[in-house]
This record gives sequence, structure tokens and C-alpha cells, in this order.
Amino acid sequence: MLERFKVPEKDRVYVAHDRIKQATHDILRHVGVDEQGATASADVLIKNDLRGVESHGVSNGLRRYVDEYNTGVLNGTPNFEIEHETSTTARVNANNALGTHVGPWAMELAIEKASKHGMGAVSVHTSGHLAGCGYYAMQAAEADMVGHAMTAGGANQTVPTWGSKPLLGTNPIAYAAPANEMPPFLFDVATTQVANNKIGLARRTGATILPGWIADKSGEPILEEIPAPENGEFYSLHIGGTRENGSHKGFGFALMNEIICNGFTGLGSGPVTGIKHGGHFFMAYQVEAFTDLAKFKSDMDDLLRYIAAVPPSKGFERVVYAGLLEAEEEQKRLKDGIPYHHEVVEWFESYCAEAGIECDLR
Amino acid sequence: MLERFKVPEKDRVYVAHDRIKQATHDILRHVGVDEQGATASADVLIKNDLRGVESHGVSNGLRRYVDEYNTGVLNGTPNFEIEHETSTTARVNANNALGTHVGPWAMELAIEKASKHGMGAVSVHTSGHLAGCGYYAMQAAEADMVGHAMTAGGANQTVPTWGSKPLLGTNPIAYAAPANEMPPFLFDVATTQVANNKIGLARRTGATILPGWIADKSGEPILEEIPAPENGEFYSLHIGGTRENGSHKGFGFALMNEIICNGFTGLGSGPVTGIKHGGHFFMAYQVEAFTDLAKFKSDMDDLLRYIAAVPPSKGFERVVYAGLLEAEEEQKRLKDGIPYHHEVVEWFESYCAEAGIECDLR
Repeated sequence: MLERFKVPEKDRVYVAHDRIKQATHDILRHVGVDEQGATASADVLIKNDLRGVESHGVSNGLRRYVDEYNTGVLNGTPNFEIEHETSTTARVNANNALGTHVGPWAMELAIEKASKHGMGAVSVHTSGHLAGCGYYAMQAAEADMVGHAMTAGGANQTVPTWGSKPLLGTNPIAYAAPANEMPPFLFDVATTQVANNKIGLARRTGATILPGWIADKSGEPILEEIPAPENGEFYSLHIGGTRENGSHKGFGFALMNEIICNGFTGLGSGPVTGIKHGGHFFMAYQVEAFTDLAKFKSDMDDLLRYIAAVPPSKGFERVVYAGLLEAEEEQKRLKDGIPYHHEVVEWFESYCAEAGIECDLR
Repeated sequence: MLERFKVPEKDRVYVAHDRIKQATHDILRHVGVDEQGATASADVLIKNDLRGVESHGVSNGLRRYVDEYNTGVLNGTPNFEIEHETSTTARVNANNALGTHVGPWAMELAIEKASKHGMGAVSVHTSGHLAGCGYYAMQAAEADMVGHAMTAGGANQTVPTWGSKPLLGTNPIAYAAPANEMPPFLFDVATTQVANNKIGLARRTGATILPGWIADKSGEPILEEIPAPENGEFYSLHIGGTRENGSHKGFGFALMNEIICNGFTGLGSGPVTGIKHGGHFFMAYQVEAFTDLAKFKSDMDDLLRYIAAVPPSKGFERVVYAGLLEAEEEQKRLKDGIPYHHEVVEWFESYCAEAGIECDLR
């Protein structure tokens, strides 16, 4: 994540990961989430925070999820219904589970199918926010497979190339692949210039928004540096920003995501149907179905080590691959705690006090 | 394709597609390619030209392939050896076949596996240039599946984010999905700002190269508009161009491509091994393995129609999705012929005259 999105030093409160995870679990239980769901969601969110992906951790997410459980948008005790199944695939109705609740289960199902038949994929509909896709792709990498996860997100956020109105969501895409000695490849990005949650983070940290990152409400890309606008006061742009700089490529990846995540659920596409939460897609490739696993992982070490040794260009310290900085950050945060904005910690403390949850974060 | 890459009006010679396809086939036969290979390659290359993707048609490709056959880099009579196979996957040694020779066959194998088991994927090594990935993804869409194709390309062309030396190839990625009434989704892009072949096209057409598209030989992005440099006088940049504009996203997609295309062949990664031609990857998703096919295709029509109806922003005529303009161009070129640069047509004519091939292109 760019420096501008990090919590400023003066606002940081460092919290031990197991304490914030327990508090997250307890708050989710308090709003009626079953034990499996509270455990799964707390693990996804705190793993994101540990890896420095705080745009998809508890800071932006938990308040919203609590509201969605309290207003009945989300179901804390869902039954996951497999509506259609083959040896390699399944389509699941998540019964209004939070994405972080059903996601780990759905990826396990894909992994199980891949371990028997070489590949496995599961499409999921009627489910809430997934909190990024990296966690799920990583489940497959931890099982020595290549993982792939996507979610169509909420429609009508991102202006397509040459368009004046928003169409798709931020439609993130993740892949992960294992190595032996090097930290695994873990790639997880919105198909927009910048994830919407990062605009929220920028508002909190006072960071500015760079030229070409977002569009105004008439769809025109904003080509100067501005303070982070309020939610609802901007649209996203696809990776590239303008057609000349390749936004049709970002739009194409986003549309592929839309077609697979929503098309494979049978529910139709968000912009057309108005369905708020888009489908998710989880996939695992068994490495041995193609080649020798030990050779693959040793080739991965060679490749990832080679990349980390590419000499940096002027003004930069090092070359990294997706997953390297996050793995280093995780080691640091496991030791030192996770640096949350004090407002986030205060929200936890006041929620816990009101709800009668024991919670010692400092 | 951007206007700047098109052949200028004054240099165009329009050639009927069946004539240029026959000539391409005959030239390939003349350099020793077997009947299956000459037919397959001519179909891939002329399909690209018909769709307006002339960066991956005969203009840039055929001369190079002829050289590679004549110097023994390519094998015109290869046996495709399936080295490893499961119900859903296969790894193939293409025995130095041109990519356009083995590609259609490999995608057929993936489609056959998907039609039986829900998904199918084939990795291919020891093979030459694939000429883009769109043709192969489209084979699956024509079989009512979602298609996915990638190739790792030649290493050491593209500078990674923050790097001073090139690492990966242009590593293109394609997806295709069928609809009923609307032209199918067909997305096929290099994971660089601009495909290397397009720099060649720009040299031929006199077009300039925009800021942030390529880097100089020290890895620094060139941030002004310049004439197209010679081959070997520049490096590519990943989609986004700079880190602030998201080049880590382009780099991540390219690395995913590298890991799957080369990792799944067992041959290791191009930058590490020095192997010139990277692996290919072909995959098909059977729609019925997830949901009802008729509903999926009708949802695709609704989505694609919705996109084409998004009002354009100021200064633009319309909003399009990947595959729409190309499908329209194909209809036009089937009727009017394909507009080649006169130098390309002259090359065909002189090659045919020398080789004693009957060839009437005008």
C-alpha cells in the first residue's frame, strides 16, 4: 500500500493481533453471528490487518458489518446451499452470509475438488462483503495449489472507458502461488485505479488523491491532486485511468470478473438487475495436475528470488513482487502489534463497554 | 486499437480475406509446415487481421515465422506430446511448433475436457509465438464456454515496478464469453502499457509513442511523446506505467501469467532459465457446470447491451466492451477486404513470385 494510506504515526495505537481478533470475534457473536462465522470473519479481517492491507481489515469493515447484521441485511446463521454441483464445480446460495463468513468455506470446497480432480471452482451468490480476495487465494497456496478469487462487488461505482456513468464495481481479483523459502506470491487488487476503501482511509489519514485516480459525478476523470472526497461524491476509474493510458485493460479485467462472478451464479449482472451484492468466485489449480510440485515450488523460489534481486531504478530502494512486502509486514506486526488509528480502537472499546464484552486492547 | 496504430489511408491496399489466407497457408506450406499447421496458423493470423488486431496478424508475424522455419528455430512437422494428463488437465511438449500451430489444438483439448468434467486446462511448452491469445479464448466461446488463454512470451522485455532492468515478457491474457444476439465478450491484452508489436506498427505508420508507455534502456519511464524507437532501443512498462498510476497491478497480472504459463510446464521461468519462448496456457470453463447456459447467454446479452447503451462522456462517441468494435470491424473487412500496408502486400507478392506460389492479392 502506498505510504499515503498508512495511519500517521501520531494517531497510531498498536494492538496485539490476538486481542483485536478476539474482540472482533466477540462483537460478531454479539450481533448474532454463529461460532463458525465469527471465527472465519475475524480470521480474514485480522489477517488482512496483519499483512498491512488495512483497507480490508476491521478499520473500514467492522462497523459496516455490525450495522448490516443489526438491520437484517446480513444473516449471522446462514445455511450454505449447494444449488448445483459437478466433480470440479459448485454454485452456492450463501443465504445472506457475510462474504468473510462463506468465503473460507467455499474456497475449501474448491480446494477439495481440485485435490481430487485437478481443478475446482465455486461460485457464490446472495452474500455480503468479501473484504478483498487475497485471503481466499492464499488458502489454496497454503494447500500447495495456485489460488484465484474474485468478487463482483457492488455495481455502479466505476465509470467505463469513454463512459459518463458508473457501471461495474471495483471488481477485485486475486491470485496466490506457493514457494518453499521465499514468501508466496499473493496478488490482490481492485480493477480500479484505487480501491474505494482506500478513499475512506485517505479521508481518515488526510492523504490526497492523485490525478487520474477518480472521476467526478459527470464521469470526467479528475486530473489534479485533490483532498479525498466524501462517499457518493466521486466515481472510480478502471486501472489505467484514461484510454490512452490503458483504462480499457482495467475495464476488460473488471468485465471478465463481472461475467464470471455474476454470470456463473445465474443471477444476472449487477448493473442490469440492481442486485446490490455481486457474486464471488473461488478457484484452485492443483499443481500436480500439471507438473511436479517440488520442481514448481523450487522454480517459484528461483523466480521470486530473481525478482527481489533486480536492481532498483533511480530513487527507489528495491524491487518487490506482490506478497513480499505484505509477508514482511506480517512478521513485524505479529511482533509489534497492528497500528490502528486511535478512533478505530476507541470504537472497539466503546462498543465492548456498551455490549458488556470484555476487551483489553491496550 | 487506437487510431494511431492503423495503416494510414494513403498506404492501404485492401485484400480479400480468403486470398490473403490462402497465400499465408501456401507460404507456410512452402517453408515446410504440415497441412494442419499451415491451415491452423493461417486461420489464427487472418482472423486477427479481420478483427482489426493487425499487431498480431501477418503484417508483423509472417516474415518472422518464415525466418524461424528457415533457420530451424521452428519445426513445421511437430508431434504434440502429452507429457502428463488428468481428467481436467494436460501438459504438452509442442516439439517447437509455432504457437499458432499448436494453440488451436491445445484449446480443443481443454474444451473436450471441460465438456466432460466442467473445466479443462492445458499447459504447453517448447513452442513459438502465439500471435495474441484472443483467437484461442474465442474457440471456447464458440463452444458456448468461457475461454481463457495466456502466454508468457519472451522474457526480459518489461521493466517491473521500481526496477531498472527488464524481467518479464509482455505476457498477454485473454478471456472470451458467449452471448446470443450481442457480439461476444473477447478481451485480449498485453500486460504492458502497449504490445511490442504495436511499436513496430507505429514505426511503419509513423505514429508517436505516448508518455509513460515505454522506458529507456536504464529502466526510466519516458514521460514525453516520442517517435517509435527501433527494436532493442526501449523496454516495455507494465499496465499503469508508474507505481502511482498502478503499474504494480500490471506487473502482478504479468507475474501471475508467468507463474501459470511457465510454472505449470515444469520448465522454470524465462528470466531465470534464459529459455526464449515462454509457455502457453489454455483453459475452458463449461457454463453448465455452474448454471443454466441459456440463462447465462441471455444475461450476457442484457449486460453487453446495457454497456453499449451507457452515455459517452464529453468528446466521445460511444461506450464499448472488449470484442464489440472488433466484431464490427470483422463484418466490414469480410465485405471490403483487409487494409494492409502496401509494403506488406508487396512482400507477399515478391515472396510468392520467387517461390513460384500462385497469389493474386489485388
